[in-house]
Amino acid sequence: MMEIEKKRVSSWFWQLRNEIISKFEALEHGESDDKHSNVGKVKFEKRKTHRPSRDNADLGGGEMAIMRDGHLFEKVGVNISTVYGELSETAVKVMTETKRLPNLKSNPYFWASGISVVAHMKSPFLPAIHMNTRMFWTEDAWWFGGGIDLNPCIEDPEDTKKFHAALKETCDFHDSKFYPDYKMWADKYFYIPHRKRTRGVGGIFFDEHNTGDWENDFSFTQDVGRTFIPAFSDIIIQKKNLKWGPNEKEKQLLHRGLYAEYNLIYDRGTKFGLATGHDPDAVLMSLPPHAKWL
Amino acid sequence: MMEIEKKRVSSWFWQLRNEIISKFEALEHGESDDKHSNVGKVKFEKRKTHRPSRDNADLGGGEMAIMRDGHLFEKVGVNISTVYGELSETAVKVMTETKRLPNLKSNPYFWASGISVVAHMKSPFLPAIHMNTRMFWTEDAWWFGGGIDLNPCIEDPEDTKKFHAALKETCDFHDSKFYPDYKMWADKYFYIPHRKRTRGVGGIFFDEHNTGDWENDFSFTQDVGRTFIPAFSDIIIQKKNLKWGPNEKEKQLLHRGLYAEYNLIYDRGTKFGLATGHDPDAVLMSLPPHAKWL
Repeated sequence: MMEIEKKRVSSWFWQLRNEIISKFEALEHGESDDKHSNVGKVKFEKRKTHRPSRDNADLGGGEMAIMRDGHLFEKVGVNISTVYGELSETAVKVMTETKRLPNLKSNPYFWASGISVVAHMKSPFLPAIHMNTRMFWTEDAWWFGGGIDLNPCIEDPEDTKKFHAALKETCDFHDSKFYPDYKMWADKYFYIPHRKRTRGVGGIFFDEHNTGDWENDFSFTQDVGRTFIPAFSDIIIQKKNLKWGPNEKEKQLLHRGLYAEYNLIYDRGTKFGLATGHDPDAVLMSLPPHAKWL
Repeated sequence: MMEIEKKRVSSWFWQLRNEIISKFEALEHGESDDKHSNVGKVKFEKRKTHRPSRDNADLGGGEMAIMRDGHLFEKVGVNISTVYGELSETAVKVMTETKRLPNLKSNPYFWASGISVVAHMKSPFLPAIHMNTRMFWTEDAWWFGGGIDLNPCIEDPEDTKKFHAALKETCDFHDSKFYPDYKMWADKYFYIPHRKRTRGVGGIFFDEHNTGDWENDFSFTQDVGRTFIPAFSDIIIQKKNLKWGPNEKEKQLLHRGLYAEYNLIYDRGTKFGLATGHDPDAVLMSLPPHAKWL
């Protein structure tokens, strides 16, 4: 069921993935003035991923792409995947706990497709960023989910304002309730209870997004993805030449420790991915290249 | 109840803490040949910890001690605490799930005292190590728990053999069943499912240790603590002068990433500590000073 919609969704995620990769490589390569140097010429390395199965059944998969050690991007990963099959007991347990799906059958058939991006930048003045959008389908229900959040180690109220304004504009185009609701959800979702703070300056987060109008819900999800590229690259272009020293780098490494704490302890996508036996390198792609704890 | 026993236990943990600190500082200071240099003269910094309460009630506390940036010890933390009060709902939930205490009353009175040590060494040839021993008491039950495990990034079968032999000798002195049982428990406890490997080369792990003979169980717990110092310092003394380069350091940083994954995702002590609102810096003292993810 919904076969055409599923194809459109997974094609869109591939397209968005390719656009993000092109844009990030262009930003990175624009950094190098030295034509004879390899520095600044790093590229995304791609690897197919497969959801492991005991009997070699086709459970779907995707591609992970990582660019490392650039002038701008210290580590940036873009994962896409389209997976399907029966939901494992563990997955059903997680989903009935966290979703409004108390009556999920045991071992129901599901389909899910999504994109996930995490960028850790070399300069401490460039925030880390996370973006994810996805569609989930079972025989009982379908929905979209996703979010974008900005994680500077050195906060700049002007960046935060512009970033939120871009998200608000995208949301408002679809429904004026989306931005306040989904901003509040992000503030709650990205909160780190043991540190009594959020991991960054927020953004939007949404899940179980189903207004009843699939076409418009898909369109909203696409627009969130489209907003991500300029909202982030504007900050990069504006701040990429700021000079930083060991004090700023120290702040960044400690902030990355906090980011790793959040992802390993609280992030639902990470928990779900690890609990359902996905490729750990793909699930943990979000972890920072270097982190520090005092 | 058991007031004298509780006092003996918490005094022992203070004593063991002081012995560990003295020995580690002596090892560290023995490293410096330059009398005019401050390098190698780092010391443990101590800070009192308190279990936070809403109404300033005395819920106990302890002391955390950390020595950083030494010649040998890049970061080593030794925490001790003696805490008491009513078990929170979250704690009861965790404990009824993981302990054989299905009938734990809601909000029972408890008392717990323990020591926890984690050392991350500067040289990649020196393994990280973890040791913890504790006594837990409620009106229904008391038990000891603890463990030691060795976490080299460059494994040396000879070290592993000697380390396990020392643990076996200590266990066998009390009961020949302890070592095989508690070694197996460590292999299971320190397993990282998503990486399909253990975090190190094992050791022993035990919990709910109650043979019915408190005196002997306390004595066993003390002996585990006593074994820790020579078992670890023998390795340090033997390997501290081995030269290492960037390849070995890279292995160490990646192995520390794995260590952080384990502690943040699976370690029960960490989960329990964070869920019950303990000082996050004390709970997360175990995290490596620097870690890396590819």
